[in-house]
Amino acid sequence: MSGSSYGQIFKLTTFGESHGVAIGGIIEGFPSNFALDLVAVQQALDKRRPGQSSLVSPRNEKDQLEILSGIFDGKTTGSPIAFLIKNQDQQSKDYQQLKDTFRPSHADFTYQQKYGNRDHRGGGRSSARETACRVVAGAIAAQALQKLGVKASTFVDQIGAVQLQSQQWFSTEQIEASPLRCPDSVISAQMEVLVKEIQQNGDTIGGSIRSVIEGVPAGWGEPVFDKLHAELGKAMLSINAVKGFEIGSGFAAIQMKGSVHNDQFLSDGSTATNHSGGIQGGISNGMPITFRVAFKPVASIAQPQEVLAQDGQLKELAIEGRHDACVVPRAVPIVEAMAHIVLFDFYLRQQRNTLFS
Amino acid sequence: MSGSSYGQIFKLTTFGESHGVAIGGIIEGFPSNFALDLVAVQQALDKRRPGQSSLVSPRNEKDQLEILSGIFDGKTTGSPIAFLIKNQDQQSKDYQQLKDTFRPSHADFTYQQKYGNRDHRGGGRSSARETACRVVAGAIAAQALQKLGVKASTFVDQIGAVQLQSQQWFSTEQIEASPLRCPDSVISAQMEVLVKEIQQNGDTIGGSIRSVIEGVPAGWGEPVFDKLHAELGKAMLSINAVKGFEIGSGFAAIQMKGSVHNDQFLSDGSTATNHSGGIQGGISNGMPITFRVAFKPVASIAQPQEVLAQDGQLKELAIEGRHDACVVPRAVPIVEAMAHIVLFDFYLRQQRNTLFS
Amino acid sequence: MSGSSYGQIFKLTTFGESHGVAIGGIIEGFPSNFALDLVAVQQALDKRRPGQSSLVSPRNEKDQLEILSGIFDGKTTGSPIAFLIKNQDQQSKDYQQLKDTFRPSHADFTYQQKYGNRDHRGGGRSSARETACRVVAGAIAAQALQKLGVKASTFVDQIGAVQLQSQQWFSTEQIEASPLRCPDSVISAQMEVLVKEIQQNGDTIGGSIRSVIEGVPAGWGEPVFDKLHAELGKAMLSINAVKGFEIGSGFAAIQMKGSVHNDQFLSDGSTATNHSGGIQGGISNGMPITFRVAFKPVASIAQPQEVLAQDGQLKELAIEGRHDACVVPRAVPIVEAMAHIVLFDFYLRQQRNTLFS
Amino acid sequence: MSGSSYGQIFKLTTFGESHGVAIGGIIEGFPSNFALDLVAVQQALDKRRPGQSSLVSPRNEKDQLEILSGIFDGKTTGSPIAFLIKNQDQQSKDYQQLKDTFRPSHADFTYQQKYGNRDHRGGGRSSARETACRVVAGAIAAQALQKLGVKASTFVDQIGAVQLQSQQWFSTEQIEASPLRCPDSVISAQMEVLVKEIQQNGDTIGGSIRSVIEGVPAGWGEPVFDKLHAELGKAMLSINAVKGFEIGSGFAAIQMKGSVHNDQFLSDGSTATNHSGGIQGGISNGMPITFRVAFKPVASIAQPQEVLAQDGQLKELAIEGRHDACVVPRAVPIVEAMAHIVLFDFYLRQQRNTLFS
Repeated sequence: MSGSSYGQIFKLTTFGESHGVAIGGIIEGFPSNFALDLVAVQQALDKRRPGQSSLVSPRNEKDQLEILSGIFDGKTTGSPIAFLIKNQDQQSKDYQQLKDTFRPSHADFTYQQKYGNRDHRGGGRSSARETACRVVAGAIAAQALQKLGVKASTFVDQIGAVQLQSQQWFSTEQIEASPLRCPDSVISAQMEVLVKEIQQNGDTIGGSIRSVIEGVPAGWGEPVFDKLHAELGKAMLSINAVKGFEIGSGFAAIQMKGSVHNDQFLSDGSTATNHSGGIQGGISNGMPITFRVAFKPVASIAQPQEVLAQDGQLKELAIEGRHDACVVPRAVPIVEAMAHIVLFDFYLRQQRNTLFS
Repeated sequence: MSGSSYGQIFKLTTFGESHGVAIGGIIEGFPSNFALDLVAVQQALDKRRPGQSSLVSPRNEKDQLEILSGIFDGKTTGSPIAFLIKNQDQQSKDYQQLKDTFRPSHADFTYQQKYGNRDHRGGGRSSARETACRVVAGAIAAQALQKLGVKASTFVDQIGAVQLQSQQWFSTEQIEASPLRCPDSVISAQMEVLVKEIQQNGDTIGGSIRSVIEGVPAGWGEPVFDKLHAELGKAMLSINAVKGFEIGSGFAAIQMKGSVHNDQFLSDGSTATNHSGGIQGGISNGMPITFRVAFKPVASIAQPQEVLAQDGQLKELAIEGRHDACVVPRAVPIVEAMAHIVLFDFYLRQQRNTLFS
Repeated sequence: MSGSSYGQIFKLTTFGESHGVAIGGIIEGFPSNFALDLVAVQQALDKRRPGQSSLVSPRNEKDQLEILSGIFDGKTTGSPIAFLIKNQDQQSKDYQQLKDTFRPSHADFTYQQKYGNRDHRGGGRSSARETACRVVAGAIAAQALQKLGVKASTFVDQIGAVQLQSQQWFSTEQIEASPLRCPDSVISAQMEVLVKEIQQNGDTIGGSIRSVIEGVPAGWGEPVFDKLHAELGKAMLSINAVKGFEIGSGFAAIQMKGSVHNDQFLSDGSTATNHSGGIQGGISNGMPITFRVAFKPVASIAQPQEVLAQDGQLKELAIEGRHDACVVPRAVPIVEAMAHIVLFDFYLRQQRNTLFS
Repeated sequence: MSGSSYGQIFKLTTFGESHGVAIGGIIEGFPSNFALDLVAVQQALDKRRPGQSSLVSPRNEKDQLEILSGIFDGKTTGSPIAFLIKNQDQQSKDYQQLKDTFRPSHADFTYQQKYGNRDHRGGGRSSARETACRVVAGAIAAQALQKLGVKASTFVDQIGAVQLQSQQWFSTEQIEASPLRCPDSVISAQMEVLVKEIQQNGDTIGGSIRSVIEGVPAGWGEPVFDKLHAELGKAMLSINAVKGFEIGSGFAAIQMKGSVHNDQFLSDGSTATNHSGGIQGGISNGMPITFRVAFKPVASIAQPQEVLAQDGQLKELAIEGRHDACVVPRAVPIVEAMAHIVLFDFYLRQQRNTLFS
């Protein structure tokens, strides 16, 4: 109800503000008796961290995972797994100037309107810092999915006008070799040039991320409202700065004919093409699931711009603090985490159907 | 859990298969003491019906709304509003040939894989026929939203390559004047030519729908996972044949700079531009909410194509029955209904926040 | 949220008023591919019906089950199972006198206060007529539970001061042999004398029902808030006229010592006594689950009594209509239905835990 | 789904094991802009703590509340309120002997059966230690309810055979004056004698708690399944060691006639008697809400008793550790907390109904 929970059986509830004591969450519904690799979870968190290259924010947040419950002798007990990540490198003073002002295209104004008050420090609850909690839950779901044979490949496929047109599955090594998490070295280099230029101008630029997920068997997803791609869409659109989502053929389908778009069957039940993006009628068909997520340029720019004061006055302000010229590479682990959360939840939801078959 | 429910407080649960006894649903959470205009609900249903012009399917389904509960002496009682729509013009024989075969890009194969059996008649539960129930709930939500000053404008903005580039609010009269529900008469005429050509070739074509919603005050939507545009995205992606969703600047944001994309404030809290699409941080900001939904071409084409038999054999089949060359105009009331359902639910969810302010 | 739904995975949502068009519901979460015996469901409904003996209301409601969806060729499809029961023998005129009056210990006053209006005919939504929908869902759950080896025995164990003190499992035949559904013929005869006397005085009398359920394996129920007996308690307390619930030793435990109350283990994991009532820490332990439900005397009495008019005037009224002197025997199938609904839901919820064990 | 959440709008999700790092929870749905008194919350926690008199366990747990989020400058922000209580005085060695054994009438056996593994230290997740989290959420709800005029009186009304028969509203001072939280000094003294005797015998004894809640206006509670007393019943039955719940007349209603049980109206809408316990048809009627909760004697007794080893062997064991001879007085703040959680949630749920009245 409050918007801080995700999932039906595998369920994440998060809390925390950017500059509060800590952020964290409670994970419910993870099966018992599973040996969790917490080092791998911490590594996933580290991938989201700023300060990984000269192209991204130099903040040195230490996102140290602390598990509070639900794991005993290295194995899950079936009880809620609670975790927290303390806020350390907060530098609240950077944000003091924003106490009575609303930054354009941030959530300052809307939170104030919604709640009548707000924690203005670094965006408070609206900060993308909360996505660290998604990464934790996603990394835990990923370990179960791995046992089920599911493996995701998530990468930056466009920044500005520089685009990698591919629905190929790339390995983590191929993706992580690029500072921009674009697995094509030529295009990655072009992106790097672009982002540096944008950075020098004190500006930001949008981009997009593609995910290609192999190993999902046919049958995951629910009919009507909880279609698998509808839930993936919600999950992705809930990530900060996301403006669009498309599955399979996506917006290109607008201009396609049915005779071309239809994925013809092969005799083993797979299909010759994959315009469906691995999902038909909201249910996985065994083909790779592939979708694309569009990100706007982050609103925090170094260039001076006008902000709105609570008294209705407009004044010019250069937002201080350390921000990314292009946040999209850092969003790769978040997109992947949300995909894992959604998929594992649908796996659990599917278990009921075959109980009497 | 089963995928047949939508909403948190204002909640729709639907049932029914394309060729079963009836489809219908239960609406929970509608406030009491509201004088519902059931004629208006029936009119909304009629807008979704096939057979409205030569461009769409000639089936003459009578979607007659029957209210079973929750309304007494013309006013809501606060109890669940149950309704049903009997299935009349079913012609199940059309589908008999599909008993043991899976049509390409339909849900035949995935339902069989998921459930181990299926009602094969006309797609059963996966048929777009269930969207009639969404229209009923949406039309009921719309009446409450109207009292709150919310008014939606939903229209076809692209079919194939023919596009109306506009985020303008058009009146129902302007939209309904076009057989394709495209409020620009010149572009509508071009669309008409295109659809007829597609139809003559026994093919189908994709398209897209834009919605522009005025009158939503600042403060609707929940933080983190239940962002207003994330829920709108899920609602739209849950509609049959939808492949993509974008809010505000959408996929175009990929190529935009922050200095351009940021919506500069005016002194009254409104913004000079609306790249945000009326939502910032997942919460409405008082500007028009605008989004766009991409539809694939419908999979049922008159041209012969290969289907997969349950024994693994591929055979050629011309799908009989009466299908639309472009289903997008008929999807306009469905898109609008889902938008109304989402918005009214978020209105109700927002009531809690200000109780002590 | 609206109070008309029960269950998490196996979920029933009901609708309908006592004198509206129909009552009914939607059942979600039932596994696919299950051959349902609808005759058995109708028989369960018949057991709840009034008019079965001279001791209960002579109304001859025909509670004819109509299935609208979710079953194809005799088997469940995994889609929602919708059903309705038309209201036939309504005699609304009986209730016309109650339009502007509140009967004592009915829900007339509270519904009016809550909603600002109400369907006054026969109690509207507050009528026990809605329990017929519970019986339908319970009878469906029962068929799945039967395959899992679960079998319930539910009987009247007290009316007024006449009590059968037993936690034995009685067969349906033993129970149904008694017009009062009390499986001890001597005590049943005493109850019969009592009820006839009460009836002749135009009065009503309370009673209680015991349920003994065998075959539930250890492991059903969830920790902390959703303890198996807590959910059973809610389910029972939600039945009209129920005033109390106790599990195992129940209220007698107040006076017991731990050294006596503790159920000593036998070497096979069963226990020598069953003060726990088959549940420890909220989770079934494999012993018979047994609980008891207390019913107040029904509020509709033939004797004249004072009612409150909406204008604040008190006036004497003899409530017409046909009512039971003791409703408890008719509540037996309702108690059993709710137990089945709860148990089957917890069975489905338990499936997730052992997936990786 | 996992059993660790309670409430629909005002929602508590808890985590933590008795001897883990910490216990805690996330509270969702509390309105924004409310000045919370955290000292009062800590005081409520202290009332639940062991070690308050010679009659209860001498453990000196420091249940120090730490708020992690959702409060800024002393006021709620509308975001989730996360809190934790670190486990300090754990003495896990006391429990080492229980690693491979199941204690009678504890949850050791059922958790093992359910999950395939367990945190055996002090009961792990099944320990009553988790109820501290309920007290936190309840104390927060209580502050909002106080503004709405609701005030609860909760006290021990029976231990063993010593009973206070009263449905009177007693002040906190009257209740806290008794070491057993029984507001009648004579009966309290009798209870004290009894408990000391039980304690000397290394045994435990059951008891019961009554709650009388004034100030709830007519209209709270939902029809059919979520009746106010059904939810109160579930809430109470979810507390460790509870075996029974009754509302108003409760089990005594079994022996009452309708002509006596019916609460006759007075002209102001109140009633002459209150057998209904303040709730009719599941909805509050404006009269005091009163219910009673039965507790079994705690299973941890000092006397040696047989435990079941995982290898099926029975062996005698005297459970060490520090346990209460009668835990009921310490359950008073827990019962009251759960009542507050339920009531505040129903208050929030009721807000939707009158929006258009």
